[in-house]
Amino acid sequence: MRLKEALGVIQPVDEEWLEKAQRRLDRLTKPVGSLGRLEELARRYSAIREEERPRIAKKAVYVFAGDHGVTQEGVSAYPALVTAQMVGNFLSGGAGINVLARHVGAEVRVVDMGVAFEFSPSLPLYHRKIGLGTANMAEGPAMGLTEAHKAIETGIRLALEVKEEGFDLLGMGDMGIGNSTAASAITAIITGEPVERVTGRGTGISGEALKKKIEIIRRALKVNRPDPRDPLDVLAKVGGFEIAGMAGFALGCAACRIPLVLDGFICTAGALIARELSPDVEDYFFASHCSQEPGHRVLLRRMGLVPLLDLRLRLGEGTGACLGMSLIEAGVRVLDEMATFEEAGVSQKEEDIA
Amino acid sequence: MRLKEALGVIQPVDEEWLEKAQRRLDRLTKPVGSLGRLEELARRYSAIREEERPRIAKKAVYVFAGDHGVTQEGVSAYPALVTAQMVGNFLSGGAGINVLARHVGAEVRVVDMGVAFEFSPSLPLYHRKIGLGTANMAEGPAMGLTEAHKAIETGIRLALEVKEEGFDLLGMGDMGIGNSTAASAITAIITGEPVERVTGRGTGISGEALKKKIEIIRRALKVNRPDPRDPLDVLAKVGGFEIAGMAGFALGCAACRIPLVLDGFICTAGALIARELSPDVEDYFFASHCSQEPGHRVLLRRMGLVPLLDLRLRLGEGTGACLGMSLIEAGVRVLDEMATFEEAGVSQKEEDIA
Repeated sequence: MRLKEALGVIQPVDEEWLEKAQRRLDRLTKPVGSLGRLEELARRYSAIREEERPRIAKKAVYVFAGDHGVTQEGVSAYPALVTAQMVGNFLSGGAGINVLARHVGAEVRVVDMGVAFEFSPSLPLYHRKIGLGTANMAEGPAMGLTEAHKAIETGIRLALEVKEEGFDLLGMGDMGIGNSTAASAITAIITGEPVERVTGRGTGISGEALKKKIEIIRRALKVNRPDPRDPLDVLAKVGGFEIAGMAGFALGCAACRIPLVLDGFICTAGALIARELSPDVEDYFFASHCSQEPGHRVLLRRMGLVPLLDLRLRLGEGTGACLGMSLIEAGVRVLDEMATFEEAGVSQKEEDIA
Repeated sequence: MRLKEALGVIQPVDEEWLEKAQRRLDRLTKPVGSLGRLEELARRYSAIREEERPRIAKKAVYVFAGDHGVTQEGVSAYPALVTAQMVGNFLSGGAGINVLARHVGAEVRVVDMGVAFEFSPSLPLYHRKIGLGTANMAEGPAMGLTEAHKAIETGIRLALEVKEEGFDLLGMGDMGIGNSTAASAITAIITGEPVERVTGRGTGISGEALKKKIEIIRRALKVNRPDPRDPLDVLAKVGGFEIAGMAGFALGCAACRIPLVLDGFICTAGALIARELSPDVEDYFFASHCSQEPGHRVLLRRMGLVPLLDLRLRLGEGTGACLGMSLIEAGVRVLDEMATFEEAGVSQKEEDIA
């Protein structure tokens, strides 16, 4: 599916399905509304799937990896080769995302969107490399428009493929040394917030290094002058291959009605690009958590998303998304598995019976 | 184990174990501290168990049920017989707690501490009935001191028994029409907050009914004059059998070093009684969530507990505790299962290597 086609098929969620789900929730053996946000999750999941009692059998989290030319400027605490090393760690099952995905029963799928390393084709990766890392955004555009387009369509196709496999719930996350710099640049341009308010410590820089990171982003914005009303222009000039892949994946999930759980700041920046291209994608998003990156809160507010968790996470990889998937599944199971007042022979509130 | 004995063996958690766990967490393939509160959970779980890489195999949630004479005053939206009906629902697997416990892999165990119904002895309940519901606290003490003592020791013994079975993580929750009235009374006395600030909608009352509930609690405090410095006196005069059972269970868990996940307002009121009897029990508590009951936030603050979730739950039964157990398990698995930088061959931050 091409980008244009995807944008054409994305529809908002049908209100009637939301109401139908709520009617069932209100007949279950609990005071009306007493399961709070679990009910909201169940309701929206049901409406996205257009099923009264949906079940979640297959879950996966996609980790999009890419490198960033801007690391030449010293914006990260870690050397750029850590992106490729961490991809290796994902494949051998030792990273945070592997542990948390196992814990919630989700498969981990790693997509090489643009790591600056030639992986052996035999590795069980989704080999979708657009380039060996982006160019340095402080000196010019991170990628060309054609590459941005190609990366987005790669993400869309991944969603269509996983839909064919019958997955019921997806999460997405990121890996890429330097990518919080790209996410902050995207956030500053699209939201209009000052750079220093949406730039954080990333993997753990502070003091002078953080000041320098802010300066580099300011320079990138000055050099590239991205058009805030043109999300593809923003993505190409100051984005990243993995961010573009996530933007496409978000569009693809919405196009084929798969609920998608967002992770942290970088992932949400990708989702923002998707939302700027098609506002209805929002209905398919679940915000798992609010990270420690200051820009994340700004993005969530901008997109009207209320995160499920606030556990001071700042790892990325999809780790928060996994925890969020488990909460969504909890809500969906409530809708399907709880007994109604009639089934259980439990008395209702007098006003509810009358 | 008697109450006095339990109070004698409860010890604070050893700081050295906390540090040992953090040292391992800092060697795992992630920026230091980037898993936020999951690290805090792992650290504390490890220190409670005094194991460097603990594993959680067996989990259970105990639901303590009891009835309340104060329901005669019309403090709840539901008739009192719903307590017994819901116990039936727990046993047939159709309640919220059954669904969420299944979801997180925990066993549900139902304790009849004082339901106003004679259950058949053949039912798979923990039959620990102290009485057929408490007396009406608006007219005199809810129970005698001897009953309060007996109920607490029942809870302690349940913890010792489950310890013998090799459980690694426990949760507790409540069922009892009218019990938010008791929890609010306990909270008002012990924290000194005005009754109206710690009294909420319970299962869903509002307007005049809520005003009446506040009046009834004020009357109960006036009639009984509980001594805020004597937790047993407070428990006997305005508590409940299930609340006493939970207070005992909390003491028992701390006495045998089992991490205990608290649920909502009523459960936390039980934990507060335990903490007033022995401040060190706090080290063994994990606050799963902050409920919609205004008194819950007051109690959590008083006890220095920061809840993991804020999902606007107000069902009780241990539902929030189940979700919290899953997060604790996530943290504990991170500590055990993630690869270290050395194991994974991933480069570290320069300052961390130096």
